[in-house]
Amino acid sequence: MSIAPDATESHHARLRARSGELTKPTAGLAPGYVQANLAILPRSLASDFLLFCQRNPRSCPLLGVSDPGDPHLPSLGTDLDIRTDVPLYRVWRDGELVEECANLHHVWRDDLVSFAIGCSFSFDESLVAHGIDVRHMSCGCNVPMYRTHIPTAAAGPFSGPMVVSMRPMKAADAIRAVQITSRFPALHGAPVHLGDPAEIGIADLQRPDYGDAVEVRVGELPVFWACGVTPQSAIAAARIAFCITHAPGHMLVTDLKTQSLAAF
Amino acid sequence: MSIAPDATESHHARLRARSGELTKPTAGLAPGYVQANLAILPRSLASDFLLFCQRNPRSCPLLGVSDPGDPHLPSLGTDLDIRTDVPLYRVWRDGELVEECANLHHVWRDDLVSFAIGCSFSFDESLVAHGIDVRHMSCGCNVPMYRTHIPTAAAGPFSGPMVVSMRPMKAADAIRAVQITSRFPALHGAPVHLGDPAEIGIADLQRPDYGDAVEVRVGELPVFWACGVTPQSAIAAARIAFCITHAPGHMLVTDLKTQSLAAF
Repeated sequence: MSIAPDATESHHARLRARSGELTKPTAGLAPGYVQANLAILPRSLASDFLLFCQRNPRSCPLLGVSDPGDPHLPSLGTDLDIRTDVPLYRVWRDGELVEECANLHHVWRDDLVSFAIGCSFSFDESLVAHGIDVRHMSCGCNVPMYRTHIPTAAAGPFSGPMVVSMRPMKAADAIRAVQITSRFPALHGAPVHLGDPAEIGIADLQRPDYGDAVEVRVGELPVFWACGVTPQSAIAAARIAFCITHAPGHMLVTDLKTQSLAAF
Repeated sequence: MSIAPDATESHHARLRARSGELTKPTAGLAPGYVQANLAILPRSLASDFLLFCQRNPRSCPLLGVSDPGDPHLPSLGTDLDIRTDVPLYRVWRDGELVEECANLHHVWRDDLVSFAIGCSFSFDESLVAHGIDVRHMSCGCNVPMYRTHIPTAAAGPFSGPMVVSMRPMKAADAIRAVQITSRFPALHGAPVHLGDPAEIGIADLQRPDYGDAVEVRVGELPVFWACGVTPQSAIAAARIAFCITHAPGHMLVTDLKTQSLAAF
Protein backbone atom coordinates (compact mmCIF):
# COMPACT_ATOMS: atom_id res chain seq x y z
CA MET A 1 0.00 0.00 0.00
CA SER A 2 1.30 3.47 -0.77
CA ILE A 3 0.31 6.32 1.53
CA ALA A 4 1.08 9.92 0.63
CA PRO A 5 3.77 11.32 2.94
CA ASP A 6 1.52 14.28 3.83
CA ALA A 7 -1.42 12.09 4.93
CA THR A 8 -2.58 13.00 8.45
CA GLU A 9 -2.19 10.32 11.12
CA SER A 10 -5.97 9.90 11.06
CA HIS A 11 -6.07 9.39 7.28
CA HIS A 12 -3.12 7.02 7.59
CA ALA A 13 -5.02 4.93 10.18
CA ARG A 14 -8.04 4.68 7.86
CA LEU A 15 -5.92 3.70 4.88
CA ARG A 16 -4.28 0.96 6.97
CA ALA A 17 -7.72 -0.33 7.96
CA ARG A 18 -8.85 -0.16 4.32
CA SER A 19 -5.91 -2.25 3.15
CA GLY A 20 -6.53 -4.87 5.85
CA GLU A 21 -3.24 -4.10 7.59
CA LEU A 22 -4.97 -2.62 10.68
CA THR A 23 -7.48 -4.95 12.36
CA LYS A 24 -6.78 -4.11 16.02
CA PRO A 25 -8.44 -1.69 18.47
CA THR A 26 -7.76 1.97 17.73
CA ALA A 27 -7.04 3.25 21.28
CA GLY A 28 -3.96 5.46 21.16
CA LEU A 29 -3.95 5.75 17.35
CA ALA A 30 -3.77 9.24 15.79
CA PRO A 31 -3.68 11.20 19.06
CA GLY A 32 -5.55 14.51 18.90
CA TYR A 33 -8.04 13.19 16.33
CA VAL A 34 -11.62 12.30 17.19
CA GLN A 35 -12.64 8.64 17.07
CA ALA A 36 -16.28 7.70 16.62
CA ASN A 37 -18.80 4.97 17.35
CA LEU A 38 -20.48 3.66 14.20
CA ALA A 39 -24.04 2.53 13.53
CA ILE A 40 -25.30 1.71 10.04
CA LEU A 41 -29.03 1.19 9.55
CA PRO A 42 -31.45 0.77 6.64
CA ARG A 43 -33.12 3.98 5.52
CA SER A 44 -36.51 2.74 6.82
CA LEU A 45 -35.15 2.89 10.39
CA ALA A 46 -32.74 5.78 9.96
CA SER A 47 -35.17 8.57 10.68
CA ASP A 48 -36.32 7.02 13.96
CA PHE A 49 -32.69 6.46 14.93
CA LEU A 50 -31.81 10.05 14.02
CA LEU A 51 -34.71 11.18 16.23
CA PHE A 52 -33.45 8.90 19.04
CA CYS A 53 -30.04 10.59 18.82
CA GLN A 54 -31.63 14.08 18.73
CA ARG A 55 -33.64 13.29 21.86
CA ASN A 56 -30.66 11.80 23.74
CA PRO A 57 -27.74 14.09 22.89
CA ARG A 58 -25.72 13.21 26.01
CA SER A 59 -25.60 9.51 25.07
CA CYS A 60 -25.72 9.89 21.28
CA PRO A 61 -23.87 13.04 20.18
CA LEU A 62 -23.92 12.90 16.38
CA LEU A 63 -20.72 13.80 14.58
CA GLY A 64 -22.04 12.97 11.12
CA VAL A 65 -24.83 11.24 9.21
CA SER A 66 -24.47 10.02 5.63
CA ASP A 67 -26.94 10.36 2.80
CA PRO A 68 -28.76 7.04 2.17
CA GLY A 69 -26.56 4.62 0.24
CA ASP A 70 -23.59 6.98 0.26
CA PRO A 71 -20.57 5.27 1.86
CA HIS A 72 -18.75 8.59 2.27
CA LEU A 73 -18.84 11.08 5.14
CA PRO A 74 -16.82 13.97 3.72
CA SER A 75 -17.34 16.16 6.79
CA LEU A 76 -15.43 13.58 8.86
CA GLY A 77 -12.55 12.76 6.58
CA THR A 78 -10.82 13.10 3.26
CA ASP A 79 -11.58 10.11 1.14
CA LEU A 80 -13.42 8.38 4.02
CA ASP A 81 -15.13 5.14 2.92
CA ILE A 82 -17.34 3.72 5.65
CA ARG A 83 -17.32 0.26 3.97
CA THR A 84 -13.61 -0.27 4.55
CA ASP A 85 -12.09 2.29 6.92
CA VAL A 86 -13.01 0.76 10.29
CA PRO A 87 -10.65 -2.02 11.46
CA LEU A 88 -13.41 -4.46 12.44
CA TYR A 89 -17.19 -4.46 11.93
CA ARG A 90 -20.08 -6.38 13.43
CA VAL A 91 -23.09 -7.41 11.33
CA TRP A 92 -26.38 -7.95 13.17
CA ARG A 93 -29.57 -9.69 11.92
CA ASP A 94 -32.78 -9.75 13.97
CA GLY A 95 -30.82 -8.45 16.95
CA GLU A 96 -28.22 -11.26 16.81
CA LEU A 97 -24.54 -10.84 16.02
CA VAL A 98 -24.00 -12.93 12.89
CA GLU A 99 -20.55 -11.87 11.67
CA GLU A 100 -17.39 -9.92 12.41
CA CYS A 101 -15.63 -8.71 9.26
CA ALA A 102 -12.89 -6.37 8.06
CA ASN A 103 -14.96 -4.68 5.35
CA LEU A 104 -18.58 -4.34 4.26
CA HIS A 105 -18.36 -4.99 0.51
CA HIS A 106 -20.39 -8.21 0.75
CA VAL A 107 -23.19 -6.72 2.87
CA TRP A 108 -23.41 -3.13 1.56
CA ARG A 109 -26.83 -1.98 0.32
CA ASP A 110 -28.06 1.15 -1.44
CA ASP A 111 -30.43 2.03 1.41
CA LEU A 112 -27.89 2.14 4.25
CA VAL A 113 -27.39 5.28 6.37
CA SER A 114 -24.24 5.66 8.49
CA PHE A 115 -24.19 7.40 11.87
CA ALA A 116 -20.91 8.48 13.49
CA ILE A 117 -21.40 9.12 17.22
CA GLY A 118 -18.91 10.80 19.57
CA CYS A 119 -16.88 8.61 21.93
CA SER A 120 -15.07 9.21 25.18
CA PHE A 121 -11.60 8.18 23.94
CA SER A 122 -11.03 11.80 22.97
CA PHE A 123 -12.02 13.35 26.27
CA ASP A 124 -9.92 10.80 28.19
CA GLU A 125 -6.98 12.26 26.29
CA SER A 126 -7.97 15.77 27.48
CA LEU A 127 -8.30 14.62 31.10
CA VAL A 128 -4.82 13.06 31.00
CA ALA A 129 -3.42 16.22 29.40
CA HIS A 130 -4.74 18.14 32.43
CA GLY A 131 -2.90 15.80 34.81
CA ILE A 132 -5.94 13.77 35.88
CA ASP A 133 -5.39 10.04 36.46
CA VAL A 134 -7.80 8.18 34.17
CA ARG A 135 -7.86 4.88 35.99
CA HIS A 136 -8.67 2.51 33.11
CA MET A 137 -5.86 4.09 31.07
CA SER A 138 -3.28 3.92 33.86
CA CYS A 139 -4.38 0.28 34.45
CA GLY A 140 -4.31 -0.56 30.74
CA CYS A 141 -7.85 -1.95 30.67
CA ASN A 142 -11.22 -0.98 29.15
CA VAL A 143 -13.38 1.66 30.84
CA PRO A 144 -16.09 0.17 33.12
CA MET A 145 -19.63 0.73 31.82
CA TYR A 146 -22.98 0.19 33.54
CA ARG A 147 -26.66 0.05 32.63
CA THR A 148 -28.50 2.59 34.78
CA HIS A 149 -32.14 3.17 35.57
CA ILE A 150 -31.99 6.58 33.83
CA PRO A 151 -34.44 6.24 30.92
CA THR A 152 -33.65 7.45 27.42
CA ALA A 153 -36.31 9.33 25.43
CA ALA A 154 -37.76 6.76 23.02
CA ALA A 155 -38.13 7.24 19.25
CA GLY A 156 -39.88 4.61 17.13
CA PRO A 157 -38.49 1.18 18.11
CA PHE A 158 -35.49 2.65 19.95
CA SER A 159 -35.61 2.99 23.75
CA GLY A 160 -34.03 1.61 26.91
CA PRO A 161 -31.81 2.73 29.75
CA MET A 162 -28.82 5.07 29.54
CA VAL A 163 -25.47 3.29 29.71
CA VAL A 164 -22.73 5.23 31.54
CA SER A 165 -18.96 4.97 31.77
CA MET A 166 -17.23 5.55 35.13
CA ARG A 167 -13.93 7.14 36.13
CA PRO A 168 -12.97 7.31 39.85
CA MET A 169 -11.44 10.65 40.92
CA LYS A 170 -10.60 12.79 43.93
CA ALA A 171 -13.11 15.62 44.43
CA ALA A 172 -10.80 18.33 43.07
CA ASP A 173 -10.17 16.30 39.92
CA ALA A 174 -13.91 15.58 39.58
CA ILE A 175 -14.63 19.31 39.63
CA ARG A 176 -11.91 19.96 37.04
CA ALA A 177 -13.24 17.07 34.94
CA VAL A 178 -16.70 18.70 34.91
CA GLN A 179 -15.09 21.85 33.52
CA ILE A 180 -12.98 20.02 30.93
CA THR A 181 -15.69 17.70 29.60
CA SER A 182 -18.32 20.46 29.54
CA ARG A 183 -16.28 21.94 26.70
CA PHE A 184 -17.03 18.87 24.56
CA PRO A 185 -20.80 18.31 24.20
CA ALA A 186 -20.05 16.31 21.04
CA LEU A 187 -18.02 13.86 23.16
CA HIS A 188 -20.82 13.28 25.73
CA GLY A 189 -20.19 16.56 27.60
CA ALA A 190 -20.31 16.92 31.38
CA PRO A 191 -20.90 13.98 33.73
CA VAL A 192 -24.49 12.85 34.31
CA HIS A 193 -23.84 11.82 37.93
CA LEU A 194 -21.17 11.59 40.63
CA GLY A 195 -21.09 9.89 44.01
CA ASP A 196 -23.58 7.21 45.11
CA PRO A 197 -23.96 4.66 42.28
CA ALA A 198 -27.27 3.41 43.73
CA GLU A 199 -28.91 6.74 42.87
CA ILE A 200 -28.72 5.85 39.18
CA GLY A 201 -29.49 2.16 39.66
CA ILE A 202 -25.97 0.70 39.80
CA ALA A 203 -25.80 -2.05 42.46
CA ASP A 204 -22.10 -2.93 42.39
CA LEU A 205 -19.28 -0.88 40.82
CA GLN A 206 -17.07 -3.97 40.78
CA ARG A 207 -19.47 -5.73 38.38
CA PRO A 208 -19.71 -3.53 35.28
CA ASP A 209 -22.12 -4.56 32.50
CA TYR A 210 -19.48 -3.82 29.84
CA GLY A 211 -15.70 -3.29 30.02
CA ASP A 212 -13.51 -3.96 33.04
CA ALA A 213 -13.83 -3.12 36.76
CA VAL A 214 -11.32 -0.59 38.12
CA GLU A 215 -10.34 0.23 41.70
CA VAL A 216 -12.11 3.14 43.46
CA ARG A 217 -9.63 4.28 46.12
CA VAL A 218 -10.32 5.83 49.53
CA GLY A 219 -11.13 9.53 49.06
CA GLU A 220 -12.30 9.04 45.47
CA LEU A 221 -15.78 9.57 44.00
CA PRO A 222 -17.04 7.59 41.03
CA VAL A 223 -17.88 10.03 38.21
CA PHE A 224 -20.32 8.89 35.51
CA TRP A 225 -20.65 10.02 31.89
CA ALA A 226 -23.31 9.10 29.31
CA CYS A 227 -21.80 6.47 27.06
CA GLY A 228 -21.90 5.66 23.34
CA VAL A 229 -22.90 2.08 24.17
CA THR A 230 -26.39 3.48 24.90
CA PRO A 231 -27.43 3.61 21.22
CA GLN A 232 -25.92 0.17 20.54
CA SER A 233 -27.91 -1.18 23.45
CA ALA A 234 -31.09 0.47 22.07
CA ILE A 235 -30.38 -1.01 18.62
CA ALA A 236 -29.87 -4.48 20.09
CA ALA A 237 -33.04 -4.25 22.20
CA ALA A 238 -35.07 -3.21 19.14
CA ARG A 239 -33.99 -6.50 17.46
CA ILE A 240 -34.03 -4.80 14.09
CA ALA A 241 -33.76 -6.94 10.97
CA PHE A 242 -30.36 -5.66 9.81
CA CYS A 243 -27.67 -3.32 11.04
CA ILE A 244 -23.92 -2.89 11.22
CA THR A 245 -21.77 -1.47 14.02
CA HIS A 246 -18.04 -1.22 14.70
CA ALA A 247 -16.59 -3.98 16.89
CA PRO A 248 -15.94 -2.69 20.44
CA GLY A 249 -12.76 -0.62 20.60
CA HIS A 250 -12.36 -0.69 16.81
CA MET A 251 -13.49 2.87 16.16
CA LEU A 252 -13.81 5.08 13.09
CA VAL A 253 -10.80 7.44 13.17
CA THR A 254 -11.89 10.83 11.79
CA ASP A 255 -9.95 13.85 10.55
CA LEU A 256 -11.69 16.08 13.14
CA LYS A 257 -9.31 17.54 15.70
CA THR A 258 -10.60 17.02 19.23
CA GLN A 259 -9.89 20.66 20.06
CA SER A 260 -12.01 21.80 17.10
CA LEU A 261 -15.03 20.32 18.90
CA ALA A 262 -14.55 22.46 22.01
CA ALA A 263 -17.77 24.44 22.52
CA PHE A 264 -15.84 27.24 24.25
CA MET B 1 -61.08 31.15 29.94
CA SER B 2 -59.96 29.92 33.34
CA ILE B 3 -56.24 29.56 33.98
CA ALA B 4 -55.01 27.81 37.11
CA PRO B 5 -53.40 30.31 39.49
CA ASP B 6 -50.22 28.21 39.66
CA ALA B 7 -49.71 28.12 35.85
CA THR B 8 -46.23 29.31 34.88
CA GLU B 9 -46.01 32.48 32.82
CA SER B 10 -45.05 30.34 29.83
CA HIS B 11 -48.06 28.04 30.24
CA HIS B 12 -50.26 31.10 30.73
CA ALA B 13 -49.00 32.58 27.42
CA ARG B 14 -49.81 29.33 25.58
CA LEU B 15 -53.28 29.12 27.10
CA ARG B 16 -53.97 32.72 26.02
CA ALA B 17 -52.85 31.85 22.48
CA ARG B 18 -55.03 28.72 22.58
CA SER B 19 -58.12 30.68 23.55
CA GLY B 20 -57.53 33.23 20.78
CA GLU B 21 -56.90 36.03 23.28
CA LEU B 22 -53.19 36.31 22.36
CA THR B 23 -52.53 36.94 18.66
CA LYS B 24 -49.60 39.38 18.95
CA PRO B 25 -45.82 38.90 18.80
CA THR B 26 -44.37 37.18 21.87
CA ALA B 27 -41.28 39.36 22.48
CA GLY B 28 -41.07 40.17 26.18
CA LEU B 29 -43.66 37.55 27.20
CA ALA B 30 -42.76 35.09 29.98
CA PRO B 31 -39.23 36.38 30.62
CA GLY B 32 -36.72 33.65 31.50
CA TYR B 33 -38.56 31.04 29.40
CA VAL B 34 -37.27 29.83 26.05
CA GLN B 35 -39.21 30.80 22.92
CA ALA B 36 -38.87 28.70 19.77
CA ASN B 37 -39.14 28.86 16.01
CA LEU B 38 -41.65 26.37 14.62
CA ALA B 39 -41.63 24.28 11.45
CA ILE B 40 -44.23 21.59 10.76
CA LEU B 41 -43.64 19.24 7.84
CA PRO B 42 -45.18 16.06 6.45
CA ARG B 43 -43.50 12.86 7.60
CA SER B 44 -42.19 12.22 4.06
CA LEU B 45 -39.95 15.31 4.37
CA ALA B 46 -39.32 15.19 8.10
CA SER B 47 -36.31 12.93 8.03
CA ASP B 48 -34.48 15.10 5.47
CA PHE B 49 -35.34 18.19 7.50
CA LEU B 50 -34.12 16.51 10.71
CA LEU B 51 -30.89 15.69 8.90
CA PHE B 52 -30.63 19.32 7.69
CA CYS B 53 -30.92 20.48 11.31
CA GLN B 54 -28.35 17.89 12.48
CA ARG B 55 -25.90 19.09 9.84
CA ASN B 56 -26.44 22.79 10.61
CA PRO B 57 -26.63 22.98 14.40
CA ARG B 58 -25.60 26.63 14.60
CA SER B 59 -28.55 27.75 12.46
CA CYS B 60 -31.02 25.03 13.44
CA PRO B 61 -30.53 24.02 17.09
CA LEU B 62 -33.35 21.55 17.76
CA LEU B 63 -35.19 21.92 21.05
CA GLY B 64 -37.74 19.22 20.30
CA VAL B 65 -39.23 17.05 17.56
CA SER B 66 -42.69 15.47 17.79
CA ASP B 67 -43.69 11.97 16.83
CA PRO B 68 -45.55 11.93 13.46
CA GLY B 69 -49.15 13.08 13.86
CA ASP B 70 -48.71 13.87 17.56
CA PRO B 71 -49.60 17.52 18.27
CA HIS B 72 -47.91 17.40 21.68
CA LEU B 73 -44.31 18.11 22.64
CA PRO B 74 -44.27 17.10 26.31
CA SER B 75 -40.55 17.81 26.71
CA LEU B 76 -41.25 21.49 25.93
CA GLY B 77 -44.36 22.12 27.95
CA THR B 78 -47.15 20.84 30.14
CA ASP B 79 -50.24 20.34 28.07
CA LEU B 80 -48.57 21.88 24.99
CA ASP B 81 -50.74 21.57 21.85
CA ILE B 82 -48.89 22.65 18.74
CA ARG B 83 -52.17 23.14 16.83
CA THR B 84 -53.32 26.02 19.03
CA ASP B 85 -50.58 27.33 21.29
CA VAL B 86 -48.74 29.66 18.90
CA PRO B 87 -50.36 33.11 18.50
CA LEU B 88 -50.19 33.16 14.70
CA TYR B 89 -49.28 30.53 12.09
CA ARG B 90 -48.38 30.61 8.43
CA VAL B 91 -49.50 27.87 6.04
CA TRP B 92 -47.39 27.31 2.92
CA ARG B 93 -48.26 25.36 -0.24
CA ASP B 94 -45.76 24.79 -3.07
CA GLY B 95 -43.48 27.32 -1.42
CA GLU B 96 -46.12 30.07 -1.38
CA LEU B 97 -47.68 31.60 1.73
CA VAL B 98 -51.39 30.83 1.40
CA GLU B 99 -52.81 31.65 4.84
CA GLU B 100 -52.15 33.18 8.24
CA CYS B 101 -54.30 31.65 10.98
CA ALA B 102 -54.69 31.48 14.77
CA ASN B 103 -54.96 27.69 14.97
CA LEU B 104 -54.33 24.62 12.83
CA HIS B 105 -57.49 22.59 13.37
CA HIS B 106 -58.57 22.96 9.72
CA VAL B 107 -55.19 21.97 8.25
CA TRP B 108 -53.90 19.39 10.75
CA ARG B 109 -52.96 15.96 9.32
CA ASP B 110 -51.95 12.66 10.87
CA ASP B 111 -48.57 12.69 9.13
CA LEU B 112 -47.28 16.03 10.42
CA VAL B 113 -44.03 16.31 12.40
CA SER B 114 -43.32 19.44 14.46
CA PHE B 115 -39.84 20.90 14.91
CA ALA B 116 -39.11 23.47 17.65
CA ILE B 117 -35.87 25.33 16.91
CA GLY B 118 -33.98 27.63 19.31
CA CYS B 119 -34.28 31.39 18.82
CA SER B 120 -32.18 34.36 19.80
CA PHE B 121 -34.88 36.13 21.90
CA SER B 122 -33.59 34.22 24.92
CA PHE B 123 -29.93 35.09 24.50
CA ASP B 124 -30.77 38.76 23.92
CA GLU B 125 -32.25 38.65 27.41
CA SER B 126 -28.95 37.24 28.76
CA LEU B 127 -26.91 39.93 26.98
CA VAL B 128 -29.07 42.70 28.48
CA ALA B 129 -28.81 41.06 31.92
CA HIS B 130 -25.01 41.39 31.57
CA GLY B 131 -25.30 45.11 30.84
CA ILE B 132 -24.72 44.86 27.08
CA ASP B 133 -26.73 47.27 24.90
CA VAL B 134 -28.70 45.14 22.42
CA ARG B 135 -29.38 47.78 19.82
CA HIS B 136 -32.61 46.47 18.30
CA MET B 137 -34.06 46.12 21.79
CA SER B 138 -33.03 49.60 22.92
CA CYS B 139 -34.40 50.94 19.60
CA GLY B 140 -37.63 48.93 19.89
CA CYS B 141 -37.32 47.37 16.43
CA ASN B 142 -36.74 43.89 14.99
CA VAL B 143 -33.18 42.48 14.81
CA PRO B 144 -31.52 43.00 11.38
CA MET B 145 -30.95 39.74 9.49
CA TYR B 146 -28.90 39.06 6.36
CA ARG B 147 -28.43 36.30 3.82
CA THR B 148 -24.72 35.44 3.71
CA HIS B 149 -22.56 33.48 1.31
CA ILE B 150 -21.82 30.92 4.04
CA PRO B 151 -23.32 27.68 2.67
CA THR B 152 -25.39 25.32 4.79
CA ALA B 153 -24.80 21.57 4.54
CA ALA B 154 -27.61 20.26 2.32
CA ALA B 155 -29.92 17.36 3.17
CA GLY B 156 -32.44 16.08 0.63
CA PRO B 157 -34.27 19.11 -0.84
CA PHE B 158 -33.06 21.47 1.90
CA SER B 159 -30.07 23.73 1.22
CA GLY B 160 -29.13 27.37 0.75
CA PRO B 161 -27.15 30.08 2.50
CA MET B 162 -26.92 30.71 6.24
CA VAL B 163 -28.98 33.66 7.44
CA VAL B 164 -27.40 35.65 10.30
CA SER B 165 -28.65 38.20 12.80
CA MET B 166 -26.45 41.19 13.69
CA ARG B 167 -25.86 43.16 16.90
CA PRO B 168 -23.39 46.09 16.91
CA MET B 169 -21.11 46.22 19.98
CA LYS B 170 -17.93 47.71 21.34
CA ALA B 171 -15.02 45.26 21.30
CA ALA B 172 -15.15 44.57 25.05
CA ASP B 173 -18.87 43.79 24.83
CA ALA B 174 -18.30 41.63 21.75
CA ILE B 175 -15.78 39.55 23.69
CA ARG B 176 -18.16 39.21 26.64
CA ALA B 177 -20.99 38.34 24.22
CA VAL B 178 -18.88 35.48 22.81
CA GLN B 179 -18.53 34.13 26.35
CA ILE B 180 -22.21 34.54 27.21
CA THR B 181 -23.66 33.08 24.02
CA SER B 182 -21.15 30.19 23.97
CA ARG B 183 -23.02 28.90 27.03
CA PHE B 184 -26.16 28.41 24.92
CA PRO B 185 -25.48 26.15 21.92
CA ALA B 186 -29.24 25.43 21.81
CA LEU B 187 -29.85 29.15 21.20
CA HIS B 188 -27.41 29.41 18.23
CA GLY B 189 -24.29 29.53 20.46
CA ALA B 190 -21.29 31.77 19.81
CA PRO B 191 -21.16 34.28 16.92
CA VAL B 192 -20.21 32.97 13.47
CA HIS B 193 -18.42 36.21 12.48
CA LEU B 194 -17.50 39.68 13.67
CA GLY B 195 -16.09 42.71 11.88
CA ASP B 196 -16.08 43.11 8.09
CA PRO B 197 -19.55 42.17 6.73
CA ALA B 198 -18.14 41.67 3.22
CA GLU B 199 -16.20 38.63 4.40
CA ILE B 200 -19.48 36.73 4.75
CA GLY B 201 -21.10 38.22 1.67
CA ILE B 202 -23.05 41.12 3.19
CA ALA B 203 -22.83 44.20 0.94
CA ASP B 204 -24.65 46.81 3.03
CA LEU B 205 -25.51 46.57 6.74
CA GLN B 206 -28.14 49.28 6.30
CA ARG B 207 -30.12 47.04 3.93
CA PRO B 208 -30.98 43.87 5.88
CA ASP B 209 -32.80 41.07 4.07
CA TYR B 210 -35.16 40.59 7.02
CA GLY B 211 -36.00 42.76 10.05
CA ASP B 212 -34.92 46.37 10.55
CA ALA B 213 -31.62 48.22 10.06
CA VAL B 214 -29.94 49.51 13.23
CA GLU B 215 -27.17 52.07 13.71
CA VAL B 216 -23.56 50.83 13.98
CA ARG B 217 -21.78 53.57 15.96
CA VAL B 218 -18.14 54.67 15.76
CA GLY B 219 -15.98 52.21 17.70
CA GLU B 220 -18.48 49.37 17.32
CA LEU B 221 -18.08 46.07 15.49
CA PRO B 222 -21.00 44.26 13.90
CA VAL B 223 -21.29 40.81 15.53
CA PHE B 224 -23.12 38.06 13.61
CA TRP B 225 -24.96 34.98 14.89
CA ALA B 226 -26.49 32.11 12.92
CA CYS B 227 -30.24 32.73 12.76
CA GLY B 228 -33.35 30.59 12.95
CA VAL B 229 -34.58 32.13 9.69
CA THR B 230 -32.04 29.87 7.94
CA PRO B 231 -34.29 26.76 8.08
CA GLN B 232 -37.36 28.78 7.03
CA SER B 233 -35.38 30.09 4.08
CA ALA B 234 -34.33 26.52 3.19
CA ILE B 235 -37.96 25.35 3.44
CA ALA B 236 -39.16 28.17 1.21
CA ALA B 237 -36.41 27.55 -1.37
CA ALA B 238 -37.32 23.84 -1.50
CA ARG B 239 -40.87 24.87 -2.53
CA ILE B 240 -42.29 21.86 -0.71
CA ALA B 241 -45.93 20.97 -1.25
CA PHE B 242 -47.14 21.68 2.28
CA CYS B 243 -45.74 23.07 5.50
CA ILE B 244 -46.60 25.27 8.46
CA THR B 245 -44.43 27.78 10.34
CA HIS B 246 -45.04 30.39 13.04
CA ALA B 247 -45.59 33.93 11.78
CA PRO B 248 -42.45 36.06 12.34
CA GLY B 249 -42.16 37.17 15.96
CA HIS B 250 -45.10 34.97 17.02
CA MET B 251 -43.06 32.26 18.69
CA LEU B 252 -43.84 29.07 20.57
CA VAL B 253 -43.38 29.89 24.29
CA THR B 254 -41.98 26.79 26.03
CA ASP B 255 -41.70 25.82 29.70
CA LEU B 256 -37.91 25.45 29.37
CA LYS B 257 -35.97 27.89 31.50
CA THR B 258 -33.29 29.67 29.47
CA GLN B 259 -30.74 29.01 32.20
CA SER B 260 -31.48 25.26 32.06
CA LEU B 261 -30.04 25.27 28.52
CA ALA B 262 -26.65 26.65 29.61
CA ALA B 263 -24.02 24.12 28.49
CA PHE B 264 -21.71 25.20 31.33
